[in-house]
Amino acid sequence: MCVTMNTEQPFSTSETVEPPGDISADDFRAALHRAADLAADYLEQVHDYPVVPKIEPGDVRALLPTEPPEEGEPLDQILDDYKRVIEPRTTHWNHPGFMAYFAVTGSGPGIIGETLASTLNVNAMLWRTGPSATELEEHTCDWLRQMLQLPEGLHGHINDTASISSLLALAAARERLVDLDIRRKGMAGRSDLPPLTMYCSDQAHSSIDKAAITLGVGLEHMRRIPSDEAFRLRIDKLEEAIAADKAAGCRPVAVVGTLGTTSTTSIDPLPEIAAIAKRENMWFHVDGAYALSAGICPEYRALMEGVEHADSVVTNPHKWLFVPVDCSVLWVRDPDLLRRAFSIIPDYLTTTETNVTNLMDYGVQLGRRFRALKMWMVLRAFGVKGLQERIRYHCALAKDLAAWVDAQPGLERVAPTPFSTVCFRAVPDLPPDEQDEFNERLVAAVNRAGPVFVSHTRLRERFVLRISIGNLRTRPEHVEQAQQLVTRAHGQLLAEL
Amino acid sequence: MCVTMNTEQPFSTSETVEPPGDISADDFRAALHRAADLAADYLEQVHDYPVVPKIEPGDVRALLPTEPPEEGEPLDQILDDYKRVIEPRTTHWNHPGFMAYFAVTGSGPGIIGETLASTLNVNAMLWRTGPSATELEEHTCDWLRQMLQLPEGLHGHINDTASISSLLALAAARERLVDLDIRRKGMAGRSDLPPLTMYCSDQAHSSIDKAAITLGVGLEHMRRIPSDEAFRLRIDKLEEAIAADKAAGCRPVAVVGTLGTTSTTSIDPLPEIAAIAKRENMWFHVDGAYALSAGICPEYRALMEGVEHADSVVTNPHKWLFVPVDCSVLWVRDPDLLRRAFSIIPDYLTTTETNVTNLMDYGVQLGRRFRALKMWMVLRAFGVKGLQERIRYHCALAKDLAAWVDAQPGLERVAPTPFSTVCFRAVPDLPPDEQDEFNERLVAAVNRAGPVFVSHTRLRERFVLRISIGNLRTRPEHVEQAQQLVTRAHGQLLAEL
Repeated sequence: MCVTMNTEQPFSTSETVEPPGDISADDFRAALHRAADLAADYLEQVHDYPVVPKIEPGDVRALLPTEPPEEGEPLDQILDDYKRVIEPRTTHWNHPGFMAYFAVTGSGPGIIGETLASTLNVNAMLWRTGPSATELEEHTCDWLRQMLQLPEGLHGHINDTASISSLLALAAARERLVDLDIRRKGMAGRSDLPPLTMYCSDQAHSSIDKAAITLGVGLEHMRRIPSDEAFRLRIDKLEEAIAADKAAGCRPVAVVGTLGTTSTTSIDPLPEIAAIAKRENMWFHVDGAYALSAGICPEYRALMEGVEHADSVVTNPHKWLFVPVDCSVLWVRDPDLLRRAFSIIPDYLTTTETNVTNLMDYGVQLGRRFRALKMWMVLRAFGVKGLQERIRYHCALAKDLAAWVDAQPGLERVAPTPFSTVCFRAVPDLPPDEQDEFNERLVAAVNRAGPVFVSHTRLRERFVLRISIGNLRTRPEHVEQAQQLVTRAHGQLLAEL
Repeated sequence: MCVTMNTEQPFSTSETVEPPGDISADDFRAALHRAADLAADYLEQVHDYPVVPKIEPGDVRALLPTEPPEEGEPLDQILDDYKRVIEPRTTHWNHPGFMAYFAVTGSGPGIIGETLASTLNVNAMLWRTGPSATELEEHTCDWLRQMLQLPEGLHGHINDTASISSLLALAAARERLVDLDIRRKGMAGRSDLPPLTMYCSDQAHSSIDKAAITLGVGLEHMRRIPSDEAFRLRIDKLEEAIAADKAAGCRPVAVVGTLGTTSTTSIDPLPEIAAIAKRENMWFHVDGAYALSAGICPEYRALMEGVEHADSVVTNPHKWLFVPVDCSVLWVRDPDLLRRAFSIIPDYLTTTETNVTNLMDYGVQLGRRFRALKMWMVLRAFGVKGLQERIRYHCALAKDLAAWVDAQPGLERVAPTPFSTVCFRAVPDLPPDEQDEFNERLVAAVNRAGPVFVSHTRLRERFVLRISIGNLRTRPEHVEQAQQLVTRAHGQLLAEL
């Protein structure tokens, strides 16, 4: 067959127009340098802001035009607005006084990593579409595995959040029921399918419940097992629940052990849970989103016995390893199960490479940005010793704070402090409900002041305050400031009684 | 109750150690400025790289130490390694010759937005934890809604990927079956639950299948309806499938219309699908991940009639609106259904604010980074007119390319080109299977050259080439280069026959 190729074909439409392209190279360079100074200035001055901005809902939108801009605007004008409108109205997670929820840090090396990752703009769905992104992801996850003394052979990859990591782990657990072929047949309208049950403690994170919803397991089949006086899953109650479920015809599929619960950072009895999971042929998932990262210090790793038996383990370097959000590492013992659950290779994504990791096969999301870059930069910039030192420092600050709470006659610490989070409450001479109200007013008064932001939870039905130390900028004087604010607000509230 | 507060309590552990903190402010500023130059240099010189690096699997890991670094390393050394090891071994999505899959751009304004977002390191799970992030997300999604002429009142929020956006949409569809209470009861072991069926065309994206897997609907209950000669869902076949399913006792729950399929960018007959969805009381989801963004140009919006009837619509500004990955916007008509499906407010996340959007309530993921910042910067830097101009330019380049293909006697265009993606194949005088092999060798030869990267798909069982124009750096000479490479490889392959 004879083919004449005409490479002289003119670009009729496009030649008449100058290609509009990106913003000019010079404008980009100048604006990114200005953004670098905005970022550096921010981190040097963030302590001058109240942690939580003193604004009302709607205040930000009221400052923005209702309609999108017709014409492009100069980058300097946009950056002016960023500095004027956005920056002052954020809650400052990088503030040294941020001690709420789990305090985190987007560290300098991580910010640099994100800047470069967004420049490369890689989508590492396939090895071929992101070789360095794919390999750096596997490599840094393996570095972290070694740092945590997790078993060799666990396969790690990065998700956005622990919510997704745990969802994927429990989906793999469901896929492991090969006889049921849920991937293909689904779960509805099947007379051959018993109710599937999963187990976690009453202190487990809400993301475990969300996984049960999403996967069609159902909230009521995620059995929330009571915890003991130290907020650890009660093994006797777990045994009872499994036995009752089996007697009722349910199929126990998975159990989640939490390593560092959100309210108190308690650690479930992982070795005992592992033994039960093994006996019952259940998947054993460990949610170590926050506290497992502390396992890079041998003395904290010793608290975590049993994690080596897990079928899947999650920790979030964006929580306590100073990587900017989002970065959640999921290790699984049998990555083939994840692939069996999720791998779909449509015609437009086939490749010729064999024996490569195509990260799209490991979960729900096809698109995968280059998150490993920031983790690599953080691990290298601090080194294992530097990271250990920082985690130890946070725990030391928290232990001092716990000792301070214990020394106050009007305050009561309500949970052990294994890591860097302290739970406590005021115990004025009031009926329980009024005590709760008192503590709610206490936390509100502390936060209203501005320099610190602490949070709360409920333990055994009672409202308690939570102070979490995890930001690299937090120094003794910031914790002392929190103490002074608690003291002052506490005194005022008592005086008002 | 009398309380003595001792604010003089010494920080026994921590006072003896200098707080380790982040890297020094000066080091951070210097390194981020260097990263800014690395980023700007990269975008000025990216065209010098082959689009896909010429490496083998394992080449990147072989250059990295097996074990994590014990000691921290200087940032300059890490950035040297970035430049030496990582940058040359990525696939260059920001390369003007990237024409595979859907070509995308991480534009300058978007990179600046990501730099600042990672600096703030906001987790906007609650309004309170990220007021400007939450409000800017709602605001920019509404700007985009206006730009696309979608109905007022649709609620938009940002997810990482369309895979998640479509998963959430179909979870809301499942939640809409209020009588079944799947959130609480799950789907397994229920005699009151018929098989739930969903519908999409045989051209729908693999993420729709993954949603069916994840939600427990099951792959075989995601009915893939045949498409017509222009790769649009066949309404008659959809009607047949629904009728057959109802007769068999299944419950049709949702139908997905694709606006811009991945293989050919075809558009399903949305008005007809909408009418059927309404009649059958099914959820109507529109997957416009790529092509809906083109709807900011009125002439392309006219192709999209029917989208206004959708219960949920997704488009990805990280695909064709020049926002760096990841950024997927999901609009829903009834956000209450998303919240009913996913909202769980544990004790540690309660707040006192009422009538605010807490983004954690809208999906699986609790953690939510500040993705709106980059979208805001991109929309403002280019303006509506600038974005329209760029989309039109890409479509013009693609139309010229399509005309060129049509003019080549040895090549055959195999699908309409409504947007900026051209599907074609060589048609040598060979049996079909050998023709496929010929085209596989053709795409491999074109890509081996280096300056362009194109992809492939299968249409009606036949292997075809796909060239997608979507990068802001792509100019007529890059498309011409692709033509020349096709011409040369084609000629060589014919000569070898």
